[in-house]
Amino acid sequence: MVREVGLRDGLQSIARVLPTAQKIEWVNAAYAAGQREVEVGSFVPARLLPQLADTAEVLAHARTLPGLRASVLVPNLKGAERALECGAHLMVVPLSASHAHSLANLRKTPDEVVAEVARIRAARDAAGSATLIEGGVGTAFGCTLQGEVAESEVLRLMQALLDAGADRVSLADTVGFADPASVQRLFGKARALVGDRLACAHFHDTRGMGLANAYAAWQTGITRFDACLAGIGGCPHAPGASGNVTTEDLEYMLQRMGVATGVDVPALLALRQRVAGWLAGETLYGALWQAGLPRHAQPTLAAAAV
Amino acid sequence: MVREVGLRDGLQSIARVLPTAQKIEWVNAAYAAGQREVEVGSFVPARLLPQLADTAEVLAHARTLPGLRASVLVPNLKGAERALECGAHLMVVPLSASHAHSLANLRKTPDEVVAEVARIRAARDAAGSATLIEGGVGTAFGCTLQGEVAESEVLRLMQALLDAGADRVSLADTVGFADPASVQRLFGKARALVGDRLACAHFHDTRGMGLANAYAAWQTGITRFDACLAGIGGCPHAPGASGNVTTEDLEYMLQRMGVATGVDVPALLALRQRVAGWLAGETLYGALWQAGLPRHAQPTLAAAAV
Repeated sequence: MVREVGLRDGLQSIARVLPTAQKIEWVNAAYAAGQREVEVGSFVPARLLPQLADTAEVLAHARTLPGLRASVLVPNLKGAERALECGAHLMVVPLSASHAHSLANLRKTPDEVVAEVARIRAARDAAGSATLIEGGVGTAFGCTLQGEVAESEVLRLMQALLDAGADRVSLADTVGFADPASVQRLFGKARALVGDRLACAHFHDTRGMGLANAYAAWQTGITRFDACLAGIGGCPHAPGASGNVTTEDLEYMLQRMGVATGVDVPALLALRQRVAGWLAGETLYGALWQAGLPRHAQPTLAAAAV
Repeated sequence: MVREVGLRDGLQSIARVLPTAQKIEWVNAAYAAGQREVEVGSFVPARLLPQLADTAEVLAHARTLPGLRASVLVPNLKGAERALECGAHLMVVPLSASHAHSLANLRKTPDEVVAEVARIRAARDAAGSATLIEGGVGTAFGCTLQGEVAESEVLRLMQALLDAGADRVSLADTVGFADPASVQRLFGKARALVGDRLACAHFHDTRGMGLANAYAAWQTGITRFDACLAGIGGCPHAPGASGNVTTEDLEYMLQRMGVATGVDVPALLALRQRVAGWLAGETLYGALWQAGLPRHAQPTLAAAAV
């Protein structure tokens, strides 16, 4: 299952602010295409991310669509309180396993984030809310600030998030450092440790390995992935990086592999075209929209092509 | 190990004719970067592929570089005779498992190609030559003309090529129909049948799955891959298709996975830039050249990026 994170991870990396009406149109079309989980935004101060200032409105709309899980990102207790008030179905609390990235990105150490998750859990329980808490362990494969991040530290922080009260965790290759072998190794170890509570994989396609990494994670038993329509997204600390794994390419790969995802890929391609119109001038990614879905054609010429 | 096929599969799909001197510069730089197998061209009539009309000259030069295996494509006995005369180290005889693609592309049925391989083997033996014969089974995952191609037919033809005298075989996803699960299945079955005589995997990146497919093949024990610098290449029967797996991206992935390939990736990226200059105006591909090799950077701003 693919969680559409284009409205959050994608749009936060694009300077222009998409109007709320277009975001709602996007959510509706994603839902109509069969997507059942959308990260609609972040509860962060609007001065930091004006692109996501309307998260509460988009969330309110998403909650009206039966069977759609509306997810938001919350960087701290304050954001979590808003997510609880607004009735998000799931909130992702990001943690950077890279200490340097954590300080640059979240202005907290990873262990301070773990402590914040404990406070978020207490607030959730006090509110009697059903909002799920997902601890998102980012820079799990290294980062541009710190370089290498030890697997043992990633696993320690993942376990600490669960111990602090997160219902589930995900691992993210925030800046595109992962390769399929490291994915298989780390996800394998993580799943051996926490089983299905490791519930999602988040890859970027910075060096073209997004789908290969998704496949490697799939082989360890991961069935849930974050992805962005048109591959938008990125990271302010990875210059020249392309964005997230592309939703339509990942959906297509999973379906070719025989996975019944319930998503209508041609409808996704049509939605991509609309979003591309709204984002005209921005760099978009993806392969499927260029090649199209396979179809039979007529022979045109004879030349040795192997 | 990556065989550079840009000079053959790449250039044959680009209308402009690269001067022989530039091809030789390319071969020299690939060799200097550590590449040890290059497919330098095809022995096909120059009227069909004027881009490859100088194959004999490029081959003659490649043969002067110690330890470099110079490979050529030969569509028939006549081409094979030239390859033998010119002392190619290896000749690839393409066969299309799709009957429709075979007729359109080679004007022969697959079994006629098998019979031709038997004649090529007899010619090789009569000449007392050491030139290896590789049977390249193309459209092994389907094609745009015929649609599906049965795995049993691919395996039958692969075995038939070996029985007819090919020293080794490769499987090619000529038009980008493969996904990692089908790769793992077909390569797994093929290796169970013929072991290491299945010596190479040839993927296109038409729908973004090139590296994922390479990883899946790697997992079945395949260690040799065809790839094109800058991802050039394609197939006349796959409109809108992007090209082959990109050499520099694949090399980088393998090295990140811990494989000691002996290839200097920065040198490949420098070569890519030169080739991109020669091919200015053509559509090139690849992710690594855009993102660059990972490096540490200074923090620039604080924003939640997971």
